[in-house]
Amino acid sequence: MAEVRVNKKVVLKDFITAFPRESDMEVVTTDTIQLKVPEGSTAVLLKNLYLSCDPYMRWRMSKHDEPIYFPDFVPGSAITGVGVGKVLDSSHPDFKVGDYVWGMTGWEEYSLITSTEGFFKIRYPDLPLSYYTGLLGIAGYTAYAGFHEICSPKKGEYVFVSAASGAVGQLVGQFAKLMGCHVVGSAGSDEKVNLLKNKFGFDGAFNYKEEPDLNAALKRLFPDGIDISFENVGGQMLDAVLLNMRTHGRIAVCGMISQYHNLDKPEGVHNLFYLITKSIRMEGFMVSNFFHKYHQFEEITAQLIKDGKITYLEDAAEGLENAPAALVGLFAGRNVGKQLVVVSHE
Amino acid sequence: MAEVRVNKKVVLKDFITAFPRESDMEVVTTDTIQLKVPEGSTAVLLKNLYLSCDPYMRWRMSKHDEPIYFPDFVPGSAITGVGVGKVLDSSHPDFKVGDYVWGMTGWEEYSLITSTEGFFKIRYPDLPLSYYTGLLGIAGYTAYAGFHEICSPKKGEYVFVSAASGAVGQLVGQFAKLMGCHVVGSAGSDEKVNLLKNKFGFDGAFNYKEEPDLNAALKRLFPDGIDISFENVGGQMLDAVLLNMRTHGRIAVCGMISQYHNLDKPEGVHNLFYLITKSIRMEGFMVSNFFHKYHQFEEITAQLIKDGKITYLEDAAEGLENAPAALVGLFAGRNVGKQLVVVSHE
Repeated sequence: MAEVRVNKKVVLKDFITAFPRESDMEVVTTDTIQLKVPEGSTAVLLKNLYLSCDPYMRWRMSKHDEPIYFPDFVPGSAITGVGVGKVLDSSHPDFKVGDYVWGMTGWEEYSLITSTEGFFKIRYPDLPLSYYTGLLGIAGYTAYAGFHEICSPKKGEYVFVSAASGAVGQLVGQFAKLMGCHVVGSAGSDEKVNLLKNKFGFDGAFNYKEEPDLNAALKRLFPDGIDISFENVGGQMLDAVLLNMRTHGRIAVCGMISQYHNLDKPEGVHNLFYLITKSIRMEGFMVSNFFHKYHQFEEITAQLIKDGKITYLEDAAEGLENAPAALVGLFAGRNVGKQLVVVSHE
Repeated sequence: MAEVRVNKKVVLKDFITAFPRESDMEVVTTDTIQLKVPEGSTAVLLKNLYLSCDPYMRWRMSKHDEPIYFPDFVPGSAITGVGVGKVLDSSHPDFKVGDYVWGMTGWEEYSLITSTEGFFKIRYPDLPLSYYTGLLGIAGYTAYAGFHEICSPKKGEYVFVSAASGAVGQLVGQFAKLMGCHVVGSAGSDEKVNLLKNKFGFDGAFNYKEEPDLNAALKRLFPDGIDISFENVGGQMLDAVLLNMRTHGRIAVCGMISQYHNLDKPEGVHNLFYLITKSIRMEGFMVSNFFHKYHQFEEITAQLIKDGKITYLEDAAEGLENAPAALVGLFAGRNVGKQLVVVSHE
């Protein structure tokens, strides 16, 4: 008989329409799980170690008639998200007991993974495993692929990053600096602005909440205009960016966190005419478009980490009990650096 | 002594803020011109034959503090625009007396061109010269370069063209058909829809004024979605397009004629989030980006015309007296096909 354990989990109580609250979720300790994969399957049984809190998860908390982005969560079941786990049992040829992996897992202590599509075996388990929730996982690869594949950067170009202290933004800025670009970021507090300038090596930064006129703020920080904008925010910030782009500029559209609380009636963007007058390319992407080249990125970035060329800041919540607050905090901008949840350190 | 002639011209009386009216312009017959270029200059003296009426001219009729697009017109002076002329005198080495040329000229009988930048010598004067106001000029090259350089088309793809019976749209549709694409266009009257389907060879077309729900119209005509959208309109049509794009779709942003009457407060576009979820590239352009390759296009298209592979429809107003009505009619959608003004047939 396989060992049976209580499997603590975080569930979404019901679909939401407003700004997420902690009380929209609950921690349930009544379920159990058998620590063995079913006979004849190609499943993997994971012990979850680290879970990632990501902006796109707001989308999944609401009900959608059309599956245009990620699937909606299932109320009453464990929330799912990207996480790092250790393989406790496996009947899949690519994953062995003791391997560390990352991919789409559950917000619970143990997950039975029946489809390993989008799962990656961790090749650098000597680096902090939590990095695979961000720097070496979705956020890092989003920053890397978005910047290098979508933005076509050149040395000396002017780069703007919105939500720049977030998991993706802090890395876009650093990849841009490594490329020899001039980088300015926006963030939502003076503490974050300070981090951008003094920890992540941005050339400039501003607190958008203290700028009555975003256009004027960008004009001040980019007197010669913006060549590349890495868009994480949308709405009014994007309108101000469009006003300040240079001819043949590129806008990588990675996220629109300012709109996620109300995607049924998103704010209008008014300055798209500048796409024409300045011959701007604006391109959206999903990091999964680039998964086939992930291990290349992993190798490059692992080396940058070992060489001390990347600074990375995590905001770790301890325990599944604190996961709802961590996720809500992300939408409120309370995190400083990559928000993650520690389920277990080993 | 050089011959002096009366030089009839169309002037903008004053900057406008509302929808253009004929009375915003007037035809003036009090100026004279010497039919000779100044000594020591590199100027060219043109007899204007055909003038082009283009959507971007609406922009130039209003006052702008920042020169982000084309220069504003000068009230009291002749309107300027693209036209075809015959060289009456020249001290420029590239242009000889008797040459036919096209470029930015005046809405007047004779123009002294002191800067020939952006002027092209017409290499196929055996074709109808008026074609160089459109099919072989700005509109045709805009369609060709926009479609081939920006849209990265592949055989069999689904292509949507807005303002499809206009000078650019009718040609985008035909270039797309020549490429083996499935092409659907929108236009503003049943007559135009009929033209698209029965004259220009579009696979489908709809009258946007009779569609209460643009999203539903596109869903009906593109049950499998849109790969390429050639955007001439902006606003609500662009929002509906975004809803109906396929993954890895491309949107060439050529114009936003629905917004030109009120560019101070353009309509918001609300569905940009789909840029991310569908990995869409949206790219604005100006045809002048591609001027260095113009004669290549001219050669290809002249051959298509000679082979009877392009259908082209012109809406010609006779005489400068009818130029104001022709221009206003363009913004009201009264033209059927390329709107131009005949100053003189030879």
